[in-house]
Amino acid sequence: MAFILTFLGKGGVGCTTLGIAAAKRLASEGKRVLYATLEPGPVLEILLGTVPASDPQLIEANFWAVQLQMTVLLERSWDELKQQEAQYLRTPFLKDVFGQELGVLPGMDSALALNAIRQYDASGQYDVIVYDGSGDQAALRMLGMPEIASWYVRRFRQVFANSDLGRTVMPFLQPLVSAVLNVGWTDDLFSQPAAQQMNDLLEKGKQAIADSSRVCAYLVATPDDVAIATAKYLWGAAQQIRLTVGGLILNRAMEEGAIGPVFAPLSVTTIPNLVVNDWQPLMAALPDFNQVPVVPPPMAINTAERKVSLFLPGFDKKQVKLTQYGPEITIEAGDQRHNIFLPPELRGQPVAGAKFQDGFLIISF
Amino acid sequence: MAFILTFLGKGGVGCTTLGIAAAKRLASEGKRVLYATLEPGPVLEILLGTVPASDPQLIEANFWAVQLQMTVLLERSWDELKQQEAQYLRTPFLKDVFGQELGVLPGMDSALALNAIRQYDASGQYDVIVYDGSGDQAALRMLGMPEIASWYVRRFRQVFANSDLGRTVMPFLQPLVSAVLNVGWTDDLFSQPAAQQMNDLLEKGKQAIADSSRVCAYLVATPDDVAIATAKYLWGAAQQIRLTVGGLILNRAMEEGAIGPVFAPLSVTTIPNLVVNDWQPLMAALPDFNQVPVVPPPMAINTAERKVSLFLPGFDKKQVKLTQYGPEITIEAGDQRHNIFLPPELRGQPVAGAKFQDGFLIISF
Repeated sequence: MAFILTFLGKGGVGCTTLGIAAAKRLASEGKRVLYATLEPGPVLEILLGTVPASDPQLIEANFWAVQLQMTVLLERSWDELKQQEAQYLRTPFLKDVFGQELGVLPGMDSALALNAIRQYDASGQYDVIVYDGSGDQAALRMLGMPEIASWYVRRFRQVFANSDLGRTVMPFLQPLVSAVLNVGWTDDLFSQPAAQQMNDLLEKGKQAIADSSRVCAYLVATPDDVAIATAKYLWGAAQQIRLTVGGLILNRAMEEGAIGPVFAPLSVTTIPNLVVNDWQPLMAALPDFNQVPVVPPPMAINTAERKVSLFLPGFDKKQVKLTQYGPEITIEAGDQRHNIFLPPELRGQPVAGAKFQDGFLIISF
Repeated sequence: MAFILTFLGKGGVGCTTLGIAAAKRLASEGKRVLYATLEPGPVLEILLGTVPASDPQLIEANFWAVQLQMTVLLERSWDELKQQEAQYLRTPFLKDVFGQELGVLPGMDSALALNAIRQYDASGQYDVIVYDGSGDQAALRMLGMPEIASWYVRRFRQVFANSDLGRTVMPFLQPLVSAVLNVGWTDDLFSQPAAQQMNDLLEKGKQAIADSSRVCAYLVATPDDVAIATAKYLWGAAQQIRLTVGGLILNRAMEEGAIGPVFAPLSVTTIPNLVVNDWQPLMAALPDFNQVPVVPPPMAINTAERKVSLFLPGFDKKQVKLTQYGPEITIEAGDQRHNIFLPPELRGQPVAGAKFQDGFLIISF
């Protein structure tokens, strides 16, 4: 298992530069580091001095780099899907479509990049993976995907089973599934082996992303109002997907000025300007990524006190909504919704109260 | 029908600032302008002086602004989907899931934003829509979606119909579809009314995006190597989705320097630095967006000469791949694939030759 490090901030504040500096620093400490990036080739040529291939390539001691190319990743995923199909379906049909024909639709980038990171992580070849993604809301959507997708599966499975549609469709499905699938029929579509496999993946992804010793993001800003406002927004939005934010890096700055209190309790690290190709000062100035940061967890559940506490910094009371339309509690903030899957002791219990205090939403049952 | 204007460039080069300036300029000329943005609230507060609501709001003469909030758009789309369901399905089941519960998965942002723009366009209330999206590859994925999704429908429809799976499934489908849908059964699943409606939407979107008098993008860069390399990459990548690029805007620059030849035949416009809240100099310096730019079309088909010509600037020969795995010709460049749907005269004909010259890929049949 690798430690996955990523950076969030407004475009242009230096997430890619700091990502490379972080990878260089960790590699210089003896860690086996993979720098995985979405930047286009010409940009990497300038910053890295080389365009990494679509497979990891050692570019200096302990430092591997890979350019995540969606067309390549899509081809590979398509081949894996065809293998799955051949295994489960009596009469495969995807085999007639070639990975080399497929265009990239929105959302595929995120799913493919996340899957690639998962595979590099599982390979055991790296101690650290520095993921240089878009650093914005889209990066959070990507990292939030396992959690949100798990909810969709959980919710629709139940609704389908209980619905008139489910009951109408079920008698037709058994002969259809028996004719099409290689595996035995179960009453629950979601228990088919392929669905189970997908569920396991989502569950593992969800746990990894919520574990600050596995995945950690740092905010990046420059001393500019818009950059600081964006970092603050991304901080709260990251909590909504249970991603730990380890600290704030103030790039191209000599001193932290008045920014400390805005981002408390995060540590603030100031970084000087990069002089072209002189990475040493940046590497030296970066925070110590080996230490698990001491910050509030995005969510804490206390079953004894019957309380759930959510850390939602950067929002005010009006910007956070707590609702309960479906069977779970929904939190809305930072243009994302998150449904809280409660432990059995609290599940289905009515909410007794909720207060928003010092960046925490505390829900009592 | 509105003219849709957007900006592409590396984060931090000023796409949002120029988008606002362009909207102000066009509004001052008497056009009814909608500025539709994905920026988070705190950033808009700084740049616009107000946070627009999730519905268009008049903020100065002829200038409406809307913040595209995915949670809100998802709720609305969900309600529309439930109405469709109620119309076509005998026993609806989505009705038991509430829009207010739904989290945002990767790809939804793009689909929801594109659909919102389509609706604002169709409303007839605006002459111009300035779309302030992510300005990067993700923005191109969004605008490329109708074309790529059309291909998926076209290809899979045919493969399914011709496959053993299709033939196995078909006898089971008729009773299932009759039990579930309110509409009559046809042998072709893709001719169901809901599928037809989706196809029409995709077709219209595809045509609009390929029409330079309907949708146009401008590249934005600053006099910085990385910003220029990114703009050049996005230029070529935009051609891959048939999006017209009208020109290059060199932001925070006094003179165009040596950049002109790099982006020929695009016009280059230099823009001074924005002094906080003094929009006038920016508005005055912007190019005239009312003139349809004279640039090569992304694709030109000459059936008489049996030639297809693709404009792919910024790439060299090695970076462009032409293949034919499936029934159509596939072009790969800029981490996107595009399948060329040829007119009947050229469809299914073997490629006689291809050459890459001055940024054009010319394919002969």
